[in-house]
Amino acid sequence: MATIQDIADRLGVSKGTVSKAINNAPDISETLRKTVLDTAVEMGYTRLRRQKNDAKRFCILIENMEYEEPHQFGYDFVIGFRQMAEPAGYIVNVVPVTAKLQKKTPYDVFMLQNDYAGAFVLGFSLNDPWMEDFKTSHTPTVLYDNYIPANPFIASIGIDNNEGMALAVSHLKKLGHRKIGYLSSALGAYIMQVRHKAFFHALKQNGLKADPDYAGASYYVTQCIEKHLPRLLNMGMTAIICSHDQIANAAMVQCQQLGYRVPGDISIIGFDDLPLCAYTSPPLTTIRQDRIELGKCGFYAIDSIMNKVSIGTIYLHAQLIERNSTGLAPHSPAEDESSGFLK
Amino acid sequence: MATIQDIADRLGVSKGTVSKAINNAPDISETLRKTVLDTAVEMGYTRLRRQKNDAKRFCILIENMEYEEPHQFGYDFVIGFRQMAEPAGYIVNVVPVTAKLQKKTPYDVFMLQNDYAGAFVLGFSLNDPWMEDFKTSHTPTVLYDNYIPANPFIASIGIDNNEGMALAVSHLKKLGHRKIGYLSSALGAYIMQVRHKAFFHALKQNGLKADPDYAGASYYVTQCIEKHLPRLLNMGMTAIICSHDQIANAAMVQCQQLGYRVPGDISIIGFDDLPLCAYTSPPLTTIRQDRIELGKCGFYAIDSIMNKVSIGTIYLHAQLIERNSTGLAPHSPAEDESSGFLK
Repeated sequence: MATIQDIADRLGVSKGTVSKAINNAPDISETLRKTVLDTAVEMGYTRLRRQKNDAKRFCILIENMEYEEPHQFGYDFVIGFRQMAEPAGYIVNVVPVTAKLQKKTPYDVFMLQNDYAGAFVLGFSLNDPWMEDFKTSHTPTVLYDNYIPANPFIASIGIDNNEGMALAVSHLKKLGHRKIGYLSSALGAYIMQVRHKAFFHALKQNGLKADPDYAGASYYVTQCIEKHLPRLLNMGMTAIICSHDQIANAAMVQCQQLGYRVPGDISIIGFDDLPLCAYTSPPLTTIRQDRIELGKCGFYAIDSIMNKVSIGTIYLHAQLIERNSTGLAPHSPAEDESSGFLK
Repeated sequence: MATIQDIADRLGVSKGTVSKAINNAPDISETLRKTVLDTAVEMGYTRLRRQKNDAKRFCILIENMEYEEPHQFGYDFVIGFRQMAEPAGYIVNVVPVTAKLQKKTPYDVFMLQNDYAGAFVLGFSLNDPWMEDFKTSHTPTVLYDNYIPANPFIASIGIDNNEGMALAVSHLKKLGHRKIGYLSSALGAYIMQVRHKAFFHALKQNGLKADPDYAGASYYVTQCIEKHLPRLLNMGMTAIICSHDQIANAAMVQCQQLGYRVPGDISIIGFDDLPLCAYTSPPLTTIRQDRIELGKCGFYAIDSIMNKVSIGTIYLHAQLIERNSTGLAPHSPAEDESSGFLK
């Protein structure tokens, strides 16, 4: 890694000047400070010598995700990460970020300026500006549900979505279902592409028909329900898997309004196991992602990168949580087949 | 988890008897001891109260893999695992196992009898008897290059083979290669199936033709070279990726004997980065799996399972090591295209 001397040599300034710039000293011009920081980052200098405090600092960069209340999706990630990082002597700051901030400041510069040793990144979409920066970043960084290949400083964590979809489809198959549909939010997010692919893979692995028409994706939940749900019902689906719990809940409500019994006529499975799943009507069968464990995984990954073990990906085991929104397939040759099997 | 009292109640014997059986006391019949251990395992009792020593013990179960000398494939796995486990207070035993032992003693019983808190498993093939036991085991276990779905006590580690194949194929594509073949050992091992699939996936992702005929697999290296290499050369391949370094080295030697220059007429890429790669003629371009880091990953995974974070999979970043067995594609429309690109 470059030293302060290397940066000073490159810029033809003194070590003291570089040090002042990096440590935010007041007696240095903003322009020179910016030049020094940009050069430092370009030369791969990513860790500051800490003169004033010894504690290392991590940040959790968060976007498109609520995290302040226990029922919100991001809350447990923060708890899990802190449960591991704080006893190991780290300070953890939660930092909401915007696309505007990302456009203004390159990622490594932001991390250097704020003296963060690494970041756990939640909720980024594929078109977030820093997603490009991550490809060449030298800062230990862990992405939840996003993936950057071939950079040893960047790791990805998430649950095993292939395992999750396989659990969902084989659960339905055991109940006699043979025509299974899929409702998803828009495929602009990496993880939605992964789950979409995993759905079709699971159908094929279970020997079920996997027609592209069996899936529908829309940006808004209401749009997804209005546009794709009636189509899937008309095609004779007896079960529908949803890319997340809110779609599954909306699908259940809409099915019931259309006169379908859940699960008598149609079985529904969600994804995530949000707290709401226990209270929907009927309570929702879903694939759990344990967000406390995912937060802990975030720490395992960042700690390993800092120890020069270049973990690329950690997947947690997925888990099927059976509640009451799934049941035997309705009258069909499939049911006769399965009822023999189930007795 | 079941207690000693639970086991005693189930069998209608005293707690003292159960305790004696579990602690290998001499004054108890072999038959009764076996009954107690089988029942204990069946009831999910997998951790012994340690009365004589406080150190927890891990084992590295090893099969089909040499590990005693620094140049052997398994050596660095053991070093890496120990580098993490021993400072954390664990004793680590290396235990070579055979199919015979596996048939005689169920996995959890073996672990209980020998007072191991967990295992790191190297070199198992798909038909090893304990591969079946792992599906329902309650012992924290980490498999290198094997995969067991949906059991929270079992994790898998390895390098990201998709990333590795993508690095190999895009390296060759940049050099102007358009017809790329693949030589592999037999597809009876899980990891050989993974790499085989990853090869075709990488061809497709790079917009190259991915004909099933472009790959050949045999159990023995010599058989693979005799049977498939001439076929690939006759098909006009200008580059060949191999499932591991020994095949790649044998392929280079054979190509040279047939009058092909490496890399002038044909480029060759291996997989693993064994120490031999630096000394082959020419030195071999390959995909590195860093086995020290993989050993450390083994510890990260087992430690997380023991801390109730049910990691399913850890993939390390793959790394392309460029040496001299790869070069520009020979005279072909592809080369003209690429030479413009490279200038």
